[in-house]
Amino acid sequence: MDKHLCNKKFNELEKDIFYNVIFSRRHVRKRFTNKSFEDKTIYNILKAAHHAPSVGYSQPWNFILIKDMDTRLKVKDSFLKERLKSIGLLEDNKERQEKYQSLKLEGILESDLNICVTYDKDRFAPFVIGRMTIEEAGIYSVCCAIQNLWLAARVEDIGVGWVSILDNSDLSSVINLPNSVKPIAYLCLGHVEKFNDMPDLEEDKWLKRMSLSDVIFFEKWDDKDNSDWNGFKKYMQF
Amino acid sequence: MDKHLCNKKFNELEKDIFYNVIFSRRHVRKRFTNKSFEDKTIYNILKAAHHAPSVGYSQPWNFILIKDMDTRLKVKDSFLKERLKSIGLLEDNKERQEKYQSLKLEGILESDLNICVTYDKDRFAPFVIGRMTIEEAGIYSVCCAIQNLWLAARVEDIGVGWVSILDNSDLSSVINLPNSVKPIAYLCLGHVEKFNDMPDLEEDKWLKRMSLSDVIFFEKWDDKDNSDWNGFKKYMQF
Repeated sequence: MDKHLCNKKFNELEKDIFYNVIFSRRHVRKRFTNKSFEDKTIYNILKAAHHAPSVGYSQPWNFILIKDMDTRLKVKDSFLKERLKSIGLLEDNKERQEKYQSLKLEGILESDLNICVTYDKDRFAPFVIGRMTIEEAGIYSVCCAIQNLWLAARVEDIGVGWVSILDNSDLSSVINLPNSVKPIAYLCLGHVEKFNDMPDLEEDKWLKRMSLSDVIFFEKWDDKDNSDWNGFKKYMQF
Repeated sequence: MDKHLCNKKFNELEKDIFYNVIFSRRHVRKRFTNKSFEDKTIYNILKAAHHAPSVGYSQPWNFILIKDMDTRLKVKDSFLKERLKSIGLLEDNKERQEKYQSLKLEGILESDLNICVTYDKDRFAPFVIGRMTIEEAGIYSVCCAIQNLWLAARVEDIGVGWVSILDNSDLSSVINLPNSVKPIAYLCLGHVEKFNDMPDLEEDKWLKRMSLSDVIFFEKWDDKDNSDWNGFKKYMQF
């Protein structure tokens, strides 16, 4: 990027465009079309992911690009096995169980591209700044990269779904991960018929979006009353 | 958001603006100014965070907004204690130790606002879609929210630093976290003199950015040769 753009100030119109990306990104598990996407698009998305923050600048991620149908079928098998287990866990709540069974939760075979994102704890180890006290921080970095990838995909008109109904030991063996490398995400990417107005799980009446004020506290856990924050509370309609 | 914007297609100019945000976001630990920022800005940043994807739509995050100096001083104490431990770990590498000591790694007191982002495993539990096989997926969702927050802050001209040289048990006790809630990030936010051309740890010659091709494999771990990907490889100059 040109150096003068590093210190850029964004105007109101540019902010709106950015927030449009944030608010219209969806977790996509259905409505994939069979239109494939270009190498340039894959490159753009991965480059955005690689520019995520990482603890101690350790960049501990890898991206395994998967098109092979044999691999995908094996991953799908693992999904089906784990889905059955989840159905079993809802045996005491028939209504919820029926709802769960009606949900489409992955697009492993129908999407154009699968990407496994992994965490390599040995990269630039043993001394990684910021990871000596909080070891999991390396994994957090990989998740930041995944979110960059997800947003970039939205801008490129590509839907992304994260399959976490999956046995990681199955996955590791299917794609030959060494023991020291942990799979963090299995993503399905592809063009979609449309990006839905609301999240699928909200449309399907599984759960609702919480109010923003439900997840904010002031100064300490559970404090919503702190008077130092009255200005902000008034603004946010607490 | 207006419904028609949910399915928006982004043009080339809009893509450039989005990627400008991605590439100019920095991990900021110094150069905070004493200019405070508005309630509206805090709201915008938190709203973006709250629109992150979450496993089973569980939205397991909380944001504790911290301005109180007593709290910050206690957190800074924990940082200083953990920093000393890290210096001790580099006893066998005097050059690296000296370099580490020269780095400015947090802006707890100088930034305008601290935010602790937490993970609540009990939210909408026990049955959370996608978390029955991969329990950590709830934490991954919180990290996605943090990355949304970080990017939104950049658009709002606010720098963010993530302090992970910190004892989480100290932090939990300082801000009264219940046992079931895990602190994931301690963030320092504020206006900055400038967003640097390159990451601080690169400018300080601690580590370099890896090449994108170093972190990509095809179909399986460690496979860079797969001929099905020749088109992409040519494009990416592997």
